[in-house]
Amino acid sequence: MSSNPSAPIQLGIVGVGKIVRDQHLPSIAANADYNLIATASRNGTVDGIQSFTTIDEMIATVPAMNAVSLCMPPQYRYEAAYKALTAGKHVFLEKPPGATLSEVHDLEALAKAKGVSLFASWHSRYAPGVEAAKDFLAATTTKNMHVIWKEDVRHWHPNQDWIWQAGGLGVFDPGINALSIVTHILPRAIFLTGATLEFPENRDAPIAADLHFKDATGVPVHAEFDWRQTGKQSWDIIVETEAGTMRLADGGAKLFVDEELKLAEPEAEYPSLYRRFAEIVKAGTSDVDLAPLRHVADAFMLGKRKFVEAFHD
Amino acid sequence: MSSNPSAPIQLGIVGVGKIVRDQHLPSIAANADYNLIATASRNGTVDGIQSFTTIDEMIATVPAMNAVSLCMPPQYRYEAAYKALTAGKHVFLEKPPGATLSEVHDLEALAKAKGVSLFASWHSRYAPGVEAAKDFLAATTTKNMHVIWKEDVRHWHPNQDWIWQAGGLGVFDPGINALSIVTHILPRAIFLTGATLEFPENRDAPIAADLHFKDATGVPVHAEFDWRQTGKQSWDIIVETEAGTMRLADGGAKLFVDEELKLAEPEAEYPSLYRRFAEIVKAGTSDVDLAPLRHVADAFMLGKRKFVEAFHD
Repeated sequence: MSSNPSAPIQLGIVGVGKIVRDQHLPSIAANADYNLIATASRNGTVDGIQSFTTIDEMIATVPAMNAVSLCMPPQYRYEAAYKALTAGKHVFLEKPPGATLSEVHDLEALAKAKGVSLFASWHSRYAPGVEAAKDFLAATTTKNMHVIWKEDVRHWHPNQDWIWQAGGLGVFDPGINALSIVTHILPRAIFLTGATLEFPENRDAPIAADLHFKDATGVPVHAEFDWRQTGKQSWDIIVETEAGTMRLADGGAKLFVDEELKLAEPEAEYPSLYRRFAEIVKAGTSDVDLAPLRHVADAFMLGKRKFVEAFHD
Repeated sequence: MSSNPSAPIQLGIVGVGKIVRDQHLPSIAANADYNLIATASRNGTVDGIQSFTTIDEMIATVPAMNAVSLCMPPQYRYEAAYKALTAGKHVFLEKPPGATLSEVHDLEALAKAKGVSLFASWHSRYAPGVEAAKDFLAATTTKNMHVIWKEDVRHWHPNQDWIWQAGGLGVFDPGINALSIVTHILPRAIFLTGATLEFPENRDAPIAADLHFKDATGVPVHAEFDWRQTGKQSWDIIVETEAGTMRLADGGAKLFVDEELKLAEPEAEYPSLYRRFAEIVKAGTSDVDLAPLRHVADAFMLGKRKFVEAFHD
């Protein structure tokens, strides 16, 4: 799709739900690089924006639209992305980028063939403390890492059935945010060496996971994901290094070294994601790093399964 | 590692077990491109060949060795491959190439950085009928594919505990052979849309799997893997096409169209693998297609789990 690279991106959104209202819409409205011109959703609409119930109708009716953000559950994302890319639209994928690795691989090839941009977004990588954490670890030697991602699913994902279905990833839906940070800040790649996944006996996705990784030099990384945490919630990454103990806290918002606060800034993940998407569209490139989803797939493949008590919302 | 490209490859083998004795040794002996000069294995040795118990000793003691074949269970392959590539050796990986996708990704990057060849081998792709099947499908339109891979694990994998452990893949150990053929002969990529994996209640790996895929145009592929098959064994791929029904039988050895035999040749998979490895070493390239393992990981991630009766050898 050839277009004036300095003109605003004419954007459509597919799947108008909570994350779109909370994050996407304010970020798009505040960014001069975008005009939101259409939505497609089975139920949701956005005031004042032309709305459709299917992406097919939206593509057919709004030829000026040159990019789409896909925010439906991952099990339904491939088909929409395939249609959008085939029609020559740039595509922004909410996380996780798909229900399978194979489909995202294929989308990447399709985007390349069509000369459009594909963005597999990982919002947590844009948390305020993440780049500072990466810089800190690059300048020292890591001894070990401990990732603690424990939250109350009843509070954060009330009655979201899709998240408990096969392909919905269960506790890996938040856990993949941790993995997106870990794979970004560590200087070397890590590999899973063992895992235990706990499945509620009435669900097809895990409620907890205990993961052991190491890097090529043997540095251990231990990650604990749990959705049964009431009271204090934890989204912490603690790294023992030769320069002290680094703690990236609150999902990446705050950085401590030896418990001294080094950085705390207001969260602005989605505005950063939309800046990044505009950047790759202008540059004519894609940004698809599958490492976080690959680790999740590895955990399902290599992990031991344990059945635990049924979960009811 | 610079060496005379016309000189024979000085090969070491790690993990001397059944597959090495049955397949690797005869193929290497019959190929003038190789000199087998060392083995490393906890228990096995090869008559007349210098033997070690660890790859570290073998690498340190036999500097003339410029390539290794890694034939131990996949859970132990990464560490050996990392050491061999780091030491500048070309690496042949038995299938599956690793216990995780992430580790093979990293090995691929390491091989490139070290300027040596990495071969993720898929022996079933070299079955006699596979290329003819690919040509047949390229010249017609596929309506649907049915993959039936049903064998008796007690006969083919007696008392192989590693195959039942987490990371051993269970029925996907033979099933990945089918997927390596399917992904090679189909003209378009496929993606998993749903799966059921049956785990014996006393094992960490599945004994059966039922997989549904489709390609971007909606062509369905149904795969059934089962390790509980007594009597007649099945390794068949049946494809309905506009040019008739193609059946690739006996693991790729025979090709039928509308039940008329079109091709049946003696099996020579491992000799072909070793020809291919010599070819990429001479060309200075790697051959790492992770599509079969990616589909397996996708099946574990997307699949529903079902517990079935305990399995005892």
